[in-house]
Amino acid sequence: MNHWKLQYEGFDPDQEPLREALCTLGNGYFATRGAAEEAKADDIHYPGTYVAGGYNRLTTRISGRDLVNEDLVNFPNWLCLTFQPENGEWFNLLSVEILSYRQELHLNNGLLVRNVRFRDKQGREFTVTNRRLVHMGNPHLAAIETSITAENWSGGIKIKSELDGSVINAGVARYRQLNSKHLETVSMGPVDQDGVYLLVQTSQSRIQVAQAARTQVYCRGKRLQAETLTHQREGVIGQELVFDVAEGRTVKIEKIVALYTSRDRGISESTVAARQAISRCGRFEDLLETHCRAWKNLWHRWDVKLNGQGQAQMIIRLHIFHLLQTISMNTVGLDTGVPARGLHGETYRGHIFWDEMFIFSSFNLRIPEITRSLLLYRYRRLDAARTAAKECGYNGAMYPWQSGSDGSEETQTVHLNPNSGRWLDDHSHLQRHVNLAIVYNIWEYFQVSRDMEFMSYYGAEMILEIARFWASISTYNQKTQRYDIAGVMGPDEYHEKYPDTEQGGLKNNAYTNVGVVWVLERAIKILDLLKPDRRAELVEELGLREEEIERWNDITRKMTIAFHGDGIISQFEGYDQLKEFDWDGYREKYGNIERLDRILEAEGDSPNRYKLSKQADVLMLFYLFPVRELRRIFHQLGYVFDENTFRKNVDYYIERTSHGSTLSRLVHAFVLAHIDPPRFWSFFSEALKCDIADIQGGTTKEGIHLAAMAGIDNLIQRRYAGIDTWGETISFDPTLPAGVRNLNLRLRYRGQWLELDLTDGRLRLSADKNGTEPVAVTVKGTPHCIQPGTSQEFPL
Amino acid sequence: MNHWKLQYEGFDPDQEPLREALCTLGNGYFATRGAAEEAKADDIHYPGTYVAGGYNRLTTRISGRDLVNEDLVNFPNWLCLTFQPENGEWFNLLSVEILSYRQELHLNNGLLVRNVRFRDKQGREFTVTNRRLVHMGNPHLAAIETSITAENWSGGIKIKSELDGSVINAGVARYRQLNSKHLETVSMGPVDQDGVYLLVQTSQSRIQVAQAARTQVYCRGKRLQAETLTHQREGVIGQELVFDVAEGRTVKIEKIVALYTSRDRGISESTVAARQAISRCGRFEDLLETHCRAWKNLWHRWDVKLNGQGQAQMIIRLHIFHLLQTISMNTVGLDTGVPARGLHGETYRGHIFWDEMFIFSSFNLRIPEITRSLLLYRYRRLDAARTAAKECGYNGAMYPWQSGSDGSEETQTVHLNPNSGRWLDDHSHLQRHVNLAIVYNIWEYFQVSRDMEFMSYYGAEMILEIARFWASISTYNQKTQRYDIAGVMGPDEYHEKYPDTEQGGLKNNAYTNVGVVWVLERAIKILDLLKPDRRAELVEELGLREEEIERWNDITRKMTIAFHGDGIISQFEGYDQLKEFDWDGYREKYGNIERLDRILEAEGDSPNRYKLSKQADVLMLFYLFPVRELRRIFHQLGYVFDENTFRKNVDYYIERTSHGSTLSRLVHAFVLAHIDPPRFWSFFSEALKCDIADIQGGTTKEGIHLAAMAGIDNLIQRRYAGIDTWGETISFDPTLPAGVRNLNLRLRYRGQWLELDLTDGRLRLSADKNGTEPVAVTVKGTPHCIQPGTSQEFPL
Repeated sequence: MNHWKLQYEGFDPDQEPLREALCTLGNGYFATRGAAEEAKADDIHYPGTYVAGGYNRLTTRISGRDLVNEDLVNFPNWLCLTFQPENGEWFNLLSVEILSYRQELHLNNGLLVRNVRFRDKQGREFTVTNRRLVHMGNPHLAAIETSITAENWSGGIKIKSELDGSVINAGVARYRQLNSKHLETVSMGPVDQDGVYLLVQTSQSRIQVAQAARTQVYCRGKRLQAETLTHQREGVIGQELVFDVAEGRTVKIEKIVALYTSRDRGISESTVAARQAISRCGRFEDLLETHCRAWKNLWHRWDVKLNGQGQAQMIIRLHIFHLLQTISMNTVGLDTGVPARGLHGETYRGHIFWDEMFIFSSFNLRIPEITRSLLLYRYRRLDAARTAAKECGYNGAMYPWQSGSDGSEETQTVHLNPNSGRWLDDHSHLQRHVNLAIVYNIWEYFQVSRDMEFMSYYGAEMILEIARFWASISTYNQKTQRYDIAGVMGPDEYHEKYPDTEQGGLKNNAYTNVGVVWVLERAIKILDLLKPDRRAELVEELGLREEEIERWNDITRKMTIAFHGDGIISQFEGYDQLKEFDWDGYREKYGNIERLDRILEAEGDSPNRYKLSKQADVLMLFYLFPVRELRRIFHQLGYVFDENTFRKNVDYYIERTSHGSTLSRLVHAFVLAHIDPPRFWSFFSEALKCDIADIQGGTTKEGIHLAAMAGIDNLIQRRYAGIDTWGETISFDPTLPAGVRNLNLRLRYRGQWLELDLTDGRLRLSADKNGTEPVAVTVKGTPHCIQPGTSQEFPL
Repeated sequence: MNHWKLQYEGFDPDQEPLREALCTLGNGYFATRGAAEEAKADDIHYPGTYVAGGYNRLTTRISGRDLVNEDLVNFPNWLCLTFQPENGEWFNLLSVEILSYRQELHLNNGLLVRNVRFRDKQGREFTVTNRRLVHMGNPHLAAIETSITAENWSGGIKIKSELDGSVINAGVARYRQLNSKHLETVSMGPVDQDGVYLLVQTSQSRIQVAQAARTQVYCRGKRLQAETLTHQREGVIGQELVFDVAEGRTVKIEKIVALYTSRDRGISESTVAARQAISRCGRFEDLLETHCRAWKNLWHRWDVKLNGQGQAQMIIRLHIFHLLQTISMNTVGLDTGVPARGLHGETYRGHIFWDEMFIFSSFNLRIPEITRSLLLYRYRRLDAARTAAKECGYNGAMYPWQSGSDGSEETQTVHLNPNSGRWLDDHSHLQRHVNLAIVYNIWEYFQVSRDMEFMSYYGAEMILEIARFWASISTYNQKTQRYDIAGVMGPDEYHEKYPDTEQGGLKNNAYTNVGVVWVLERAIKILDLLKPDRRAELVEELGLREEEIERWNDITRKMTIAFHGDGIISQFEGYDQLKEFDWDGYREKYGNIERLDRILEAEGDSPNRYKLSKQADVLMLFYLFPVRELRRIFHQLGYVFDENTFRKNVDYYIERTSHGSTLSRLVHAFVLAHIDPPRFWSFFSEALKCDIADIQGGTTKEGIHLAAMAGIDNLIQRRYAGIDTWGETISFDPTLPAGVRNLNLRLRYRGQWLELDLTDGRLRLSADKNGTEPVAVTVKGTPHCIQPGTSQEFPL
């Protein structure tokens, strides 16, 4: 098994949508999607690239006018490149005899290769090899090379190469009743002899996207002078090239595409830039060389070598590959966040959720400059979060559960239950806990980078404003002499209100309340860390008063956490009043009960009535915080947290969770790692395969689950290698699961690179020879110091 | 005299254009210009704001089509706010009796105040006070407040408040034959009851600019419900508000304007963002408060206190003020460079020249993050510079003399001599020395910040690519066994070719050749400074070969410098063959002979034939490099550089310079500071007044001279305080000129803030109490170390 390739043999139209999603190439905004329908019909004709970062919100109401805001928008399809032999049909896999078919995604260098041999109805045999890349070094370029060999015939052949701006958003079946047409054609035309360009504009957000394509044909290293005709129709421009092939000869068609948008920098106008780019760039092989070099440099920092785990090794690389397809050095300086489904599909319309929290740690420990850029995306939307808080009557800044281009709340207010056909109120915007995730992300980045400039100018302001929001949503309860938070939802979306009430939201969600205590502590701490000058400026700018800080302090000592039973942390106040759920009965009746919300609603019932969860909620605390940190917080609040609290709560909630989210298995694997290895392994294996096996039965083709993918990397870091960055040094407490012979990875901590090599019984840490200072580490609780260029081994 | 105010009493239509230019408010791209013509006619109606950063090039030829590229483009005028009393005329200063008139620019907080009392033809008396700001804390907002007091009458009054997209670029008379119309109206309409919006698009570069304006009237703190009518005409939308005023009462009209462009981040679409902004923001006083706070924080870092120099103190603050109007924290992250004329006028069409070199040091020693952002502007155009080098047959990257949005060469190829009316070939693009300036700027930033991340990812690549260009333009001369550089121009634009030749360019310009040696040394040094991993990546990426570095080394030992006379560095090879110029004769004949190029060409002669310079060329070496550094380079090249070289060359060239550039006096003041105090003072005083007295007779109203303004700040740092950042510590060797009692300023060096206080006989340096480490300094050659929170005094 090659651990650097995702490989499929044989053509299977039914599997194509999944294959396409997994083989998607992208690079920042220059993503490539394989849409299911067309892929079935035509192996070379795949639509679409996306505008990333979310241009969303279905409708918004400003001064009485309805404006249709853009969702994640398909870019014009630049992949259209097909051929037709003389007196034959346009290439179509469904109407020829397939002799062999192989599809390979090269994870080491982001090259997609398809090789097909077929015989047409006239008995002519063809070998077609298609190689495709989206350039990792130059985010404006992509290229396709199609080699066609006429195996047993000679004759004419016609190539069609197009840019198609008539694409629509139709990748998710249940969104198809929404407006799917988002592109208006602005202009199109030829570029020199061998090129065309197309300029489109998104209909509401007015973002211009220019593409230019150059198509050339080569035979035995020489350019063929093909007869070329340019054609245009509504939204589409292309060229047809006609030439002859001789038996046994291979012709290579190279299509180089440049893409610029009106948001790009260093250009005069996007069309001009795209046209210049295709006239200045080299040939396919030139681009491939520089593309591979960029990938090599990325893998040098990113690879996770997992010896003894063949398939897992390949899948982990596939995950890292997709992470880097979505976000890489090319993202630095762009105004983009991390969409929950990467750039791979239309589900969630490119919106930004809390998923960042599962993703950023992968960047923090390799190239934290990328995390910094992604955190600035949040900073630019701080004013929108202030407005949102104000409009709900709160202070500070309240980031929305789902957001897009302008940082407003984009969560749907109604949703469809496909099981019942009913449209239902949707309260999920009450997941205010995204405001914990953002502080967590800023803090994690800071712990790993010690980037005081970022903290001073951007991070502190976000933390303080979010702290203000949490302080204002918290209310003092005279009766309990504690603070309550009401009207929110935890990560478990099955519980959005109390049974038999109209109003959305729950009271004292434990995940939220504990997180708020931690956030307020961060806010107090950051005021302490800022240099007095900058602190004074910021305090004045924000009008921050001493009483506010006193209140923060007070809340960190008096926040409410509800309990029930024998030391079980109640997911929210009143959880113990809910009914137990008949898990076995429903499993028997329905088989897959991941989406219990839909099942129960269709029955006229509601998950709100039961002790059941879609995904980890209380247990998220154990995912995010070290147990010692939780113990400290609970004790500070005057609650019990003893040696059994962790285990008891895991056992309790794990039995009451349906795993309706791909994140759920990941979080459960994480918390089980040290207490129940066999069960950990079962969750881990399922989490690992979430996309490659499409375990949710159809969601992968609508977009990969990026947080679940990144979460695996994070889990290996934090559980296998036992990395903990909460303290003032990086610490390691490794546990290599049975079956993993060796783990090897590199990581960067506060500017210094370390290589970690872990086998059963010993950990070796090597500090990079280019390091500028010794690296202080803690291994199993004992501090050590590793000099640049040296290694230390630690028996385990 | 108030040193925080630029103040004019009395209305003088002839002086208005100059006053307008000097009182311009801007903030990043949200600049405000006062165009001469309209200001004369209407004191409240001033056109224009600019698109900054250069959208230039008059025509470009791509695939056979002429595209008109945008120059610096006027933004729609948002300042239109005027009034009309019942049965009267629209306010017009030229048709009323002016009782008093005062105009004040508050340098401390960027507030422009105009106060006028007048009597109209019907004997009605008015007091009108106009306050205007462009918000320093929120770069999207600007505001005008006009208070009108009906002194001796009561009656109706009508206000007209507009957004005017019909503006053209007409600020420079000699450009008026060029296309002046750059804006196309896209849409316009009302916003709520009290607002309007306007969306325009630049015609070639397709940048969308949206403005929204909210106009409200208040009397005695209460909102007046004025009758409001919205009107539209081609490119213009506005509102008329009608209400009554009572004798002795003051009404306040507040116009708040929001501006967003399609390049802005964190927005869905510029119109939506602008409309939301005016409905969410507070009143004029609220904006004023936050605006003043932002200015206060800037001045805390920037102020230069110059005790004993009343007018100079005010002018220096005016200079810093204009610097911060153009570039500030709001610039960080934008894709803008520093236009030579700031954002204050249309001359040079917003192009970016070498002027940065005179400007960046002001930022380096206060907020180097700003310089970093400006250097990234260059980095984004590195590919364009590579293309330019390739097209001229060179290696590496050759940055253009003038550039704009896409980084291509934008220098005019013909220019008009207004004296003769002839269009002439223009060779000034041969000023390749801009490629010294860029390396100088990167190095200076790095010396002051030690920002290794910037150097690793961006700076080193620019330096290496520029070094490659210089190595490839240098040719080895077998006869002299030295390297020559031919076909270039120095900063002195009067010499663009040899007399009686057609081809542009000169051979072995001393400024260029010495600079090239220094640049190649930097390139070698930077390879050494990079961490080996990153160096290996970069060397592979650039395909940099060992032979190239050997050649660089060789050039640094064998570059040609020409001499003539008694140790005079020839400005270029063959300079000694030129004729001496009849300075006295021409002064007598023409008076002002600053623009000798125009004078001589009109006579059928050419400056190419004479020993004369427009501005410092050889002497630029003494401006940029410490004498010890020049001595080292000359000796390394095997040339004489003795104790007389500096003085002899200053004396020689200063007599042969016409000062046709505002930079010339500055550079000459700098080199004279230590050797000829009276003459230094004379040049310094002239340089100081270059804009406030419009010493070039009319160029200030076409745009201030930002490099000359910043140069004064730089001169005070480097000559008064004697700051030198070439070594591994910051060093001070102060010389306070007679008449300056005290100099006080703050500066930041490698992350630490220092306060400098200099009086005759002693220097006091105080390290900020928030400093994180001791600051190593060198005072008059002796190293010292200042602990955070302590001061040290040094007798001088």
